[in-house]
Amino acid sequence: MSGCFTLLGRDPASRARRGVLHTEHGDIQTPVFMPVGTRGSVKAVSPLELEELGAEIILGNTYHLFLRPGSELIAEAGGLHRFAGWDHPILTDSGGFQVFSLANLRKVERDGVRFASHIDGTRFFLGPRESMKIQRDLGSDIVMAFDECTPFPATMEQAAKSVALTTRWETMSREQELSPHQLRFGIVQGSVYPELRERSAREITSLDFDGYAIGGVSVGEPEPEQFKAVEAAEPFLPEDKPRYLMGVGTPRQIVEDVARGVDMFDCVLPTRLGRHGGAFVGNGDTLPVKAGRYARDFSPLDENCDCYACRHFTRAYIRHLMNVGEILGVRLLTLHNLHYYLNLAKRIREALDNGTFAEFRAGFQA
Amino acid sequence: MSGCFTLLGRDPASRARRGVLHTEHGDIQTPVFMPVGTRGSVKAVSPLELEELGAEIILGNTYHLFLRPGSELIAEAGGLHRFAGWDHPILTDSGGFQVFSLANLRKVERDGVRFASHIDGTRFFLGPRESMKIQRDLGSDIVMAFDECTPFPATMEQAAKSVALTTRWETMSREQELSPHQLRFGIVQGSVYPELRERSAREITSLDFDGYAIGGVSVGEPEPEQFKAVEAAEPFLPEDKPRYLMGVGTPRQIVEDVARGVDMFDCVLPTRLGRHGGAFVGNGDTLPVKAGRYARDFSPLDENCDCYACRHFTRAYIRHLMNVGEILGVRLLTLHNLHYYLNLAKRIREALDNGTFAEFRAGFQA
Repeated sequence: MSGCFTLLGRDPASRARRGVLHTEHGDIQTPVFMPVGTRGSVKAVSPLELEELGAEIILGNTYHLFLRPGSELIAEAGGLHRFAGWDHPILTDSGGFQVFSLANLRKVERDGVRFASHIDGTRFFLGPRESMKIQRDLGSDIVMAFDECTPFPATMEQAAKSVALTTRWETMSREQELSPHQLRFGIVQGSVYPELRERSAREITSLDFDGYAIGGVSVGEPEPEQFKAVEAAEPFLPEDKPRYLMGVGTPRQIVEDVARGVDMFDCVLPTRLGRHGGAFVGNGDTLPVKAGRYARDFSPLDENCDCYACRHFTRAYIRHLMNVGEILGVRLLTLHNLHYYLNLAKRIREALDNGTFAEFRAGFQA
Repeated sequence: MSGCFTLLGRDPASRARRGVLHTEHGDIQTPVFMPVGTRGSVKAVSPLELEELGAEIILGNTYHLFLRPGSELIAEAGGLHRFAGWDHPILTDSGGFQVFSLANLRKVERDGVRFASHIDGTRFFLGPRESMKIQRDLGSDIVMAFDECTPFPATMEQAAKSVALTTRWETMSREQELSPHQLRFGIVQGSVYPELRERSAREITSLDFDGYAIGGVSVGEPEPEQFKAVEAAEPFLPEDKPRYLMGVGTPRQIVEDVARGVDMFDCVLPTRLGRHGGAFVGNGDTLPVKAGRYARDFSPLDENCDCYACRHFTRAYIRHLMNVGEILGVRLLTLHNLHYYLNLAKRIREALDNGTFAEFRAGFQA
């Protein structure tokens, strides 16, 4: 399949782009932020709330769904959309990242990875063939190729080996059959080495995927290295295909990576921070609402926010809920933070549409 | 204050009544089920969802709110309605029941109970004066008198002593100043002894409260004893005042106690069972959705239910959510169960309005 992406415009002062990604379950305005629904649920929020927040696409994690409830069960349910009650686009990762970060007893073999489940130690094998089969069962709109996520730090030799293995596995990924509606994205590796990022980008784009991700970031590297990785790979990605920066990032990083030509983002920060009592406010600052100084603060999390939490509840109330362990506290903080991220992407798109992205970017950093 | 209750009709075949309870924050159609919001939040649901479910009144627990965040903080926030974002009626209990069931190192004194907080051991004193002061700070629409909840089992001598102490404490409760809008309910004790229930009812009603509760039930007694306690007290409660059976009960108990002349109910069962994976279906049966037999059951929790959970999600999905610990699972089961209880009360009211309560009661037990 081709032609899934329409480039609507470019920012004259940066590499930023404005576009639309077309999928069978609907169009996605880019730049876009994609909430993470690891196990078939974006933690603490309902599909109805996600719609009301304006989320256009969510993520599912192949590794987690493969282990529980199992991809065959989800296929039997009619696919992940029907199983999870989400009738809009879904992107699934390949499972590779989680195998490397969560599973036990990993052993990298020629055609994939042998590993033991982090839940009960059951042994499995996951490679490009298995990952594509699972993602076909899940029925996601965007399927990610199976790569090897290079850990940080890695020597140049290790990173080069990882790039080669990634190209091999993604070539195999490219050959597997998917459902006709499914788009398939390749992933560029290369760690912090610009020449490897370029090599990987050239090799992966030669496989002609529907879109391209930059992987191996948000794995512990300093922020400047993340920007450098994007800058090194981006010039070698085709302009007429969407670009996705995996697992990124803070609000400021998202703005900066948009300026470097990225269209798509996913990150667990808004949901994870919400569960731990943090609220995103202003230009990406975080407000630790459990702190004692908010005990009698009867203002909303953010005076300028119009989310459900900010329209109806105070810092003092949300602090109380978090301190006594009420689920509603986590719900309100998660809603607020997702609203923050989705609204950030919306503001970025508006700035691009209005030709004011340079000011937006400068103002956001001030 | 008087005249807070309008009796709309009586069932010819039982003691069941249909009425309206008037409060400053709105009218409440009775018989009514009141969801429990112990710490200023009905567990796992939002005020918006409660409104959508048709809840007309919720409970708050004086003991819990007194300890955290403190009733003075809530007064500073403008009262519990504003603090919790709930602009409809609220009933608060007196704190007595929780002091007896949760607190440590209780010592009953003449004017109340000395106890240590179950959270951090801090020592407090709670009696009729303190309870009324706290509930005035909370600003609830219905204030419960401070009683001694007789434990089960209790000898007749113990129960008689408890009735006497309850009358003494409620007399003191009656004398404390509240806000003009607040209604004040007395509580009848007497354990499983009909003559003590009658004595308590006579003594408490002589104090002329705005409504009357039957307390000391749902404390471990067999179900027939609960029905007997209601039957023993009810004839001595004035017809023109609302009757509230505290902490009851299962769906079947609610139907049976409506038939015995009760107007108001509260119970943690729908929310608590939801958090543990149980769904109310049919005539009060519970479906243990975490069970393996529902793994591939792609039907809703209840085919005949039109709640959000049943309209959009399957047993298999909710089972998955509960088994991996996703908050959405608890949310969906709690929504479903609250819908079940609120809808049960609605069906009871409709049956009373239509003169079909006898059939409804019979059908419900079949």
